[in-house]
Amino acid sequence: MRYVHSEEPLMRFEVLTLFPDLIRDAFGWGMTGRAAADGLLALDTVNIRDYPTNSYGSIDDEPYGGGAGMLMMCEPVYRAYEEALRRLQRTGGVRVICMDPRGEVFTEAKARELSGESELIFLCGHYEGIDERVLQEIVTDPLSIGDYVLTGGELPALVVMDAVARLIPGVLHNEASAEDESFDHGLLEYPQYTRPAEWHGKKVPEILMSGDHKKVLQYREREARRRTKERRPELYEEYLRKRGIW
Amino acid sequence: MRYVHSEEPLMRFEVLTLFPDLIRDAFGWGMTGRAAADGLLALDTVNIRDYPTNSYGSIDDEPYGGGAGMLMMCEPVYRAYEEALRRLQRTGGVRVICMDPRGEVFTEAKARELSGESELIFLCGHYEGIDERVLQEIVTDPLSIGDYVLTGGELPALVVMDAVARLIPGVLHNEASAEDESFDHGLLEYPQYTRPAEWHGKKVPEILMSGDHKKVLQYREREARRRTKERRPELYEEYLRKRGIW
Repeated sequence: MRYVHSEEPLMRFEVLTLFPDLIRDAFGWGMTGRAAADGLLALDTVNIRDYPTNSYGSIDDEPYGGGAGMLMMCEPVYRAYEEALRRLQRTGGVRVICMDPRGEVFTEAKARELSGESELIFLCGHYEGIDERVLQEIVTDPLSIGDYVLTGGELPALVVMDAVARLIPGVLHNEASAEDESFDHGLLEYPQYTRPAEWHGKKVPEILMSGDHKKVLQYREREARRRTKERRPELYEEYLRKRGIW
Repeated sequence: MRYVHSEEPLMRFEVLTLFPDLIRDAFGWGMTGRAAADGLLALDTVNIRDYPTNSYGSIDDEPYGGGAGMLMMCEPVYRAYEEALRRLQRTGGVRVICMDPRGEVFTEAKARELSGESELIFLCGHYEGIDERVLQEIVTDPLSIGDYVLTGGELPALVVMDAVARLIPGVLHNEASAEDESFDHGLLEYPQYTRPAEWHGKKVPEILMSGDHKKVLQYREREARRRTKERRPELYEEYLRKRGIW
């Protein structure tokens, strides 16, 4: 299954992986699935296992110097990368993101930067890792989504694709949504309430029902600042610094 | 589809979501899928959409005070939570993790802490968010996987489940793997190499082929320190501080 459309999509993702079905299944749901169906995004996968270096179908081997587990070899990864370039009708110059706990920490600013590209290749590791030499040769952006260890690079790649995709014009049908969110102003989001006005004895703050737009905005900013200060003091300091308050 | 087994699994995940198929599809691949098949883990989903508050099937409504998008209402979320408790044969006392950019930053230490539980409930938000009151009533652990915005809580929940699952005994068949990884010693992982000894003109560092185990360990620690210092100076400072070097 490939998402193919007559009009040119705004972003093409090529994913080099051992689990192409996981990538396609997960990408096909929710907003990314709808954006692909609408032709705004295109997703394609290359199965690294299709490029073994010997007749046994091996794509991994033991690490030099010993240690637990197996490493992905250079050549299968490199050939999968060449196949992705071929599909994109490119000979190079496409950014290659490798999901790697040793990489740059992924942030909303990085998502914005990547959303300006028209093509991105993702390399998902598995086993103990990937031979360093092929990483040095092809990867332009090693990225870490956080300081925790996962069993593979597929979920992090999906996370990065989701964060990038939602910033592409038209993907979020409600355009305002991409703006008015956590981190866009450097503060965590304020609390929100919907009907009913009372639930389990808890009432919605009266100011939100006052109809006074200015007071509502003040309330929300105050709450956003209070929460950020309480929960993420380092973000709050950054916010103050940017506004010249420090 | 539920993973049901005769022997008691070591961990049960209940996921409250609007996209149960995304959760099940993605969880079914790789190590988590194998661990579920082996009966070590159990996954179950509750579709919040099955608990509407009116005959139109609504589970969301506009935010009080105005703003873009829709909020999930308290009651559908609460009823889905009650259903999860019922399935776990509990009346309370189960930790409820809500994927929320305003939450505590998820780390490997948090993954270890959560892996000590035998049951975890995940609440995945969508739309603009969830009514604050139900979050206050049921959520014990609001968690953020990083400082970026996603279209929903499903991918972050899968990330947390993956990080927690791999720490459960038996899930990684190679037990050593869970130990010898990034972050366990507070350093990023050293570079690794496998066959062939030369690829695209790049040679494997000779020390790794020397057979001198002590030198290999020294090389790896040196490289891990060098990389951490270069790429994540704040982690390196923390590492030095913990070892009393600062």
